[in-house]
Amino acid sequence: MKKAIITLTTDFGLADQYAGAMKGAVLSINSDVSIVDITHLVPPHDILAGAMALQDASGYFPQGSIHVCVVDPGVGGKRRPVLIQTDKYFFVGPDNGVLTLAAQESKIKRIIHLTEKRFFLKDVSAVFHGRDIFAPVAAHLSLGVKPSSFGPGIKSLTPLQIPCPLKKGDTITAEIIHIDRFGNLITNVPAKDLPEDGRRDATIKIKGLLIKGVKASYCGVKEGEPIALIGSSGRLEIAVNGGSGARFFKAGAGCKVEIKVPARQKGKR
Amino acid sequence: MKKAIITLTTDFGLADQYAGAMKGAVLSINSDVSIVDITHLVPPHDILAGAMALQDASGYFPQGSIHVCVVDPGVGGKRRPVLIQTDKYFFVGPDNGVLTLAAQESKIKRIIHLTEKRFFLKDVSAVFHGRDIFAPVAAHLSLGVKPSSFGPGIKSLTPLQIPCPLKKGDTITAEIIHIDRFGNLITNVPAKDLPEDGRRDATIKIKGLLIKGVKASYCGVKEGEPIALIGSSGRLEIAVNGGSGARFFKAGAGCKVEIKVPARQKGKR
Amino acid sequence: MKKAIITLTTDFGLADQYAGAMKGAVLSINSDVSIVDITHLVPPHDILAGAMALQDASGYFPQGSIHVCVVDPGVGGKRRPVLIQTDKYFFVGPDNGVLTLAAQESKIKRIIHLTEKRFFLKDVSAVFHGRDIFAPVAAHLSLGVKPSSFGPGIKSLTPLQIPCPLKKGDTITAEIIHIDRFGNLITNVPAKDLPEDGRRDATIKIKGLLIKGVKASYCGVKEGEPIALIGSSGRLEIAVNGGSGARFFKAGAGCKVEIKVPARQKGKR
Repeated sequence: MKKAIITLTTDFGLADQYAGAMKGAVLSINSDVSIVDITHLVPPHDILAGAMALQDASGYFPQGSIHVCVVDPGVGGKRRPVLIQTDKYFFVGPDNGVLTLAAQESKIKRIIHLTEKRFFLKDVSAVFHGRDIFAPVAAHLSLGVKPSSFGPGIKSLTPLQIPCPLKKGDTITAEIIHIDRFGNLITNVPAKDLPEDGRRDATIKIKGLLIKGVKASYCGVKEGEPIALIGSSGRLEIAVNGGSGARFFKAGAGCKVEIKVPARQKGKR
Repeated sequence: MKKAIITLTTDFGLADQYAGAMKGAVLSINSDVSIVDITHLVPPHDILAGAMALQDASGYFPQGSIHVCVVDPGVGGKRRPVLIQTDKYFFVGPDNGVLTLAAQESKIKRIIHLTEKRFFLKDVSAVFHGRDIFAPVAAHLSLGVKPSSFGPGIKSLTPLQIPCPLKKGDTITAEIIHIDRFGNLITNVPAKDLPEDGRRDATIKIKGLLIKGVKASYCGVKEGEPIALIGSSGRLEIAVNGGSGARFFKAGAGCKVEIKVPARQKGKR
Repeated sequence: MKKAIITLTTDFGLADQYAGAMKGAVLSINSDVSIVDITHLVPPHDILAGAMALQDASGYFPQGSIHVCVVDPGVGGKRRPVLIQTDKYFFVGPDNGVLTLAAQESKIKRIIHLTEKRFFLKDVSAVFHGRDIFAPVAAHLSLGVKPSSFGPGIKSLTPLQIPCPLKKGDTITAEIIHIDRFGNLITNVPAKDLPEDGRRDATIKIKGLLIKGVKASYCGVKEGEPIALIGSSGRLEIAVNGGSGARFFKAGAGCKVEIKVPARQKGKR
């Protein structure tokens, strides 16, 4: 039998014992589940960053995995605790948008408002639903409890969107939405917006500097030189081979990027 | 059968391979145990911080879990390596106080001085008992070796105490003992010192500023405003809704907090 | 049956979802394997640091463990993805030296160039072979796929060496090659270069200061005082009891250390 998997994505950090307590709460209910950290270093309260981390990693897990994601500035307030069942996965967390991007990657079959207290820890703190509600619900789910047992169905999720790039003619006005550990500058431009036959001649402008072409890998330029490429999450990325794009361009999240993709000139050759 | 669980709480950090080597030492003896990190980011040599992290998280794990905690500035010196059996858990680590708070949460049944070298790694480094003594002992324990096999019983543990708040009339003089990733300021005042019917009218003074009332959750005030509440560890906490109490108050560990809880006026209403 | 173990050593960091995605890729192929982090905080692109972390930790894992190590500045370029089988372990990663030190700790039986795409993820990104090649190969290996199935054998590995200390008469000129979380300064001098009967009278010079003798543990001097000892990786280490050698000496990686070990005077006594 395939082993049940619960993944965790939170902004709890690694210095405090919060993620550890969540794991204890899971294992007290099902000691034979695999718990996998996606990350606990989502910037505090940054729902979009959490949603993107979950979206980028969750799809690599096996069918049936239970993804718990807790970036929950509204804990104890009005936002609803939910369970989402898609045709691939389960998602458990607050309905504040943090689950939305990942859940929409597959077909949503059911959204449950978590109201059945018998699946929570006995004493629910108003400030730590990760440990007291979401972890225990995920653990019970991993034991085979049916989604509908956890509460009534609801119709829709709180929406969330990655800021959209603006297209006008052959120009895309985009922005940096994430900087990773290597200093790679990840934009909000998905690969599909950059037609393959236009990548070689595309120009990317950032901080007044021009990069020519969208290359295949970091090695497409000499060490220390800047490069644009499609990153591992399928978005346009600006990097430096063997170095840090963030340091090279002194660029951060929100920094504007302008991309020109020459229009295909059909039949001209 | 329930799967054996070993938790790890250390000050080894995550950049070095120390925690990884401990896990290898465990798995070489019992490859079928679940190893769970509570945290490896206890501040170096900070026994009290390690003891509090273990105390706060350990109780969420299932009965029979083996908690290994290594914050061990005296490694290779005179402090004794011990195994503590309580009516809920096993604790393994140096007897320097780091296990004391967590062990005292349940009934201590037995304390063993770890002397039986056949349960250690073959070559014991004088500077890394986490890997060479505590991890292997925990692994053997997870295989069912009896506590008494590891060495002679001893009578008492090195004591450790969280600094006590001072009560005088209706005033509690307390201090910040921990700041978490969100900048929440956690005091040494347990919830039980704040009678529920006095919380609404309590006043909390920190850095010359006054907070009125002990609320239920971070959402008890508007975003960006300071708030006092009972945190997830059951202690009085000073926070900012959607922000950082540490930044707001420019406060750190050791910072004084004065709480006034109006005396209950029995029979007056 | 012994449970299969896959260890991960990377420079992917813990804030991004990269290590999480690798784990998903493993578990999608074999959901019943134990995945253990050695570290994901190797400094970005630092092949030597990754190689040393792997060398120091890998030997503590059980026979048959699969060690995946990805510090891969040349990803997508000409360096070859490889699988190394030794008489103790499997190593999977780029052939850029990062596997070399650890693999050489035991007898290398076979080196395979990973070319068989049926063991990779379906879409291989040119920038994330950790997720798309190395993790899936390790997972298939853990299911019992034979090493020779993954590609043709090759003859040699890219060499890598820890910078060698220079010996001249009774003087060793060495350097700091790593600073750990505690501020311990780890040199490139292996214990075997310091004969046991000369340790008491050895002198260690760093930043113009002299330390007398190589002690057994941090407790060999008073708290706050500097000390030289053999660290847990079997190398000469300069530390401060209860403090940080790095802060005390204001020393970093590359800092020179001079050791004098008095020659044994045979037969004189």
